[in-house]
Amino acid sequence: MPQHFAVIIAGGKGERFWPQSRERRPKHLLPIVGKKPMLARTLDRIRPVVPAKNTFVITSAAQEKAVRQVCPKLPGANIIAEPFGRDTAPAVALAAALVGARDPRGVFAMLPADHVIPDAKAYRRDLRAAFAAASAGPVMVTIGIKPTHPETGFGYIHMGGAWREFDGAKFARVKQFKEKPALDLARHYVASGEYAWNAGMFVWSVPVVQTAFEKHAPAYAAAFEPVRKALAKRKPVGVALKKIYPKLDRLSVDYALLEKADNVVVLPASFKWDDVGSWPAVQGHCALDADGNALRGDALVVQGRGNIVFSEGGHLTAVLGLDDVVVVHTKDATLVVPKSKAQEIKKVIAKIGALKNGKKWL
Amino acid sequence: MPQHFAVIIAGGKGERFWPQSRERRPKHLLPIVGKKPMLARTLDRIRPVVPAKNTFVITSAAQEKAVRQVCPKLPGANIIAEPFGRDTAPAVALAAALVGARDPRGVFAMLPADHVIPDAKAYRRDLRAAFAAASAGPVMVTIGIKPTHPETGFGYIHMGGAWREFDGAKFARVKQFKEKPALDLARHYVASGEYAWNAGMFVWSVPVVQTAFEKHAPAYAAAFEPVRKALAKRKPVGVALKKIYPKLDRLSVDYALLEKADNVVVLPASFKWDDVGSWPAVQGHCALDADGNALRGDALVVQGRGNIVFSEGGHLTAVLGLDDVVVVHTKDATLVVPKSKAQEIKKVIAKIGALKNGKKWL
Repeated sequence: MPQHFAVIIAGGKGERFWPQSRERRPKHLLPIVGKKPMLARTLDRIRPVVPAKNTFVITSAAQEKAVRQVCPKLPGANIIAEPFGRDTAPAVALAAALVGARDPRGVFAMLPADHVIPDAKAYRRDLRAAFAAASAGPVMVTIGIKPTHPETGFGYIHMGGAWREFDGAKFARVKQFKEKPALDLARHYVASGEYAWNAGMFVWSVPVVQTAFEKHAPAYAAAFEPVRKALAKRKPVGVALKKIYPKLDRLSVDYALLEKADNVVVLPASFKWDDVGSWPAVQGHCALDADGNALRGDALVVQGRGNIVFSEGGHLTAVLGLDDVVVVHTKDATLVVPKSKAQEIKKVIAKIGALKNGKKWL
Repeated sequence: MPQHFAVIIAGGKGERFWPQSRERRPKHLLPIVGKKPMLARTLDRIRPVVPAKNTFVITSAAQEKAVRQVCPKLPGANIIAEPFGRDTAPAVALAAALVGARDPRGVFAMLPADHVIPDAKAYRRDLRAAFAAASAGPVMVTIGIKPTHPETGFGYIHMGGAWREFDGAKFARVKQFKEKPALDLARHYVASGEYAWNAGMFVWSVPVVQTAFEKHAPAYAAAFEPVRKALAKRKPVGVALKKIYPKLDRLSVDYALLEKADNVVVLPASFKWDDVGSWPAVQGHCALDADGNALRGDALVVQGRGNIVFSEGGHLTAVLGLDDVVVVHTKDATLVVPKSKAQEIKKVIAKIGALKNGKKWL
């Protein structure tokens, strides 16, 4: 009987929640929603399905130290730092090598570290069903999210006919993976009822992933051979990774494998999900005052509605006469932006990066 | 020949420039415009007309220490703290007592500490002419400002016919002092050309002020007798003031004397003047970036015009996608307000004052 594993991808550049998030402290290391860092909440959520000894976290060198502090229950060897990010394809190849060294037939879930899933029980029910499906045959299982609006920031999964049922959960075949659509196309996707959001949640076995890499991205399959060898000798993989990563192109697992494979199936999620992709999305997870303001720390709004005002460290942040703005004060930096422009924080990041001595604020 | 004196009124509650201004550090102690505190600039401006030994500063107990630091060139005895503010009438009575003890026939200018007057030479020319006028006869001289817009936040002076000329400056009689008008009336005042703004700048002799108090506010004339006695014995006046002030009603010198007197004359100012009454007024005195933003400290605006962003202490304050807002970051408090609402800062002050432990931010 193959063992079950989980591999959490905890990377990211920490831009969208600047100034609270930073290069070394991105979203998954912050209590953006609730009181624990998102990564800690993710680990808590999967714990009843996958034990700590079978749970890996793949992060980046810049974030490794902070990640270790957030994951005290994981074996130290289960936290692996990529030298730098190269999108999700290398992380999946690395994950397959890590899991394969423990159990060559192991089945593992790849899961993002920074999503909000309020109903953990429904989530675990789906996750168990996905493990059952991925254990039953040579398929790549994805958990798709029912779209609530024509989001243009996500990829979509075009679902086909019914495939099989596991633990009462009905899986569908996948017609096609679709990249982030324009708004009109997104509207069509949502209206048709045939599409799910691709939330980056996959469950599959080591042999299935290995075969897929050999078939669709053979360079990747070969590139990670030194990692597999190091693991077979119970050696740390850091040296091998430092040699491999500079030679890799940036590549998403969606593009490398899923868009090309014909053995992908999808489980439409039974749980509510939010990737909390920017400051305005946080508001839906906060207690609000009578005027719909989300306040945290010493924050004050006079004559204003729908604002997000977060103020750290005993510093008072007061907003007078404004609606729907985000004001985030941290120890060394403050951002003021209307909610409608919060997606454009990268422009601020770019301008700060260009300042003399600006990097200290990133 | 009577000596000339200047008495600077440096009071205020520090509300309009919160969070930069505080109860103990109001506008006149801050470099709101330029690099020196407004009070220091005021002292520099009058220095060629009135020597330091003849210059007094009347402040409040809460601000006394900070005022002394800003006025190192004044004799210590020339800085007097009122126990608390009771508007301008008691300050004028106190000023007359202070000056009278040095020269019973002395002529003195009462001047606010926190106004901006870019052309100091023109200002001093007018001030010298006002001294000449106040020395020539029993008149109360006021320097009136030519209105640039129908401001409802100032009192107005209704000017009558020509009175006399001193040093080439033409003085007018005063028909009436007018309290802060409604907008329609303010428009009429400005359109008529017969009105000047009352900027609280007066020049008069000790006997003229003393006579005016005896005639129009005899209770005040009597109340300050213990101060005059202490000064005659070269004793500090603090003890006397602490006894007198709790018994005084709040009273402005405009209401107590000027609106009632028939010996007031006005010199229409030849200089430009700005009381810089709130954050938006500061912008007119700042270097602006290409988008009309006034930036001070580590302040950054992306996609925004006409903003005022001041950030102290190496803290980065970034504004994205907003126009015409004021963002002021200080060590322990930050304010975000549209310029159009900056007059309403008192509402923030009130809400902070009502917070548990809120007073530390005031």
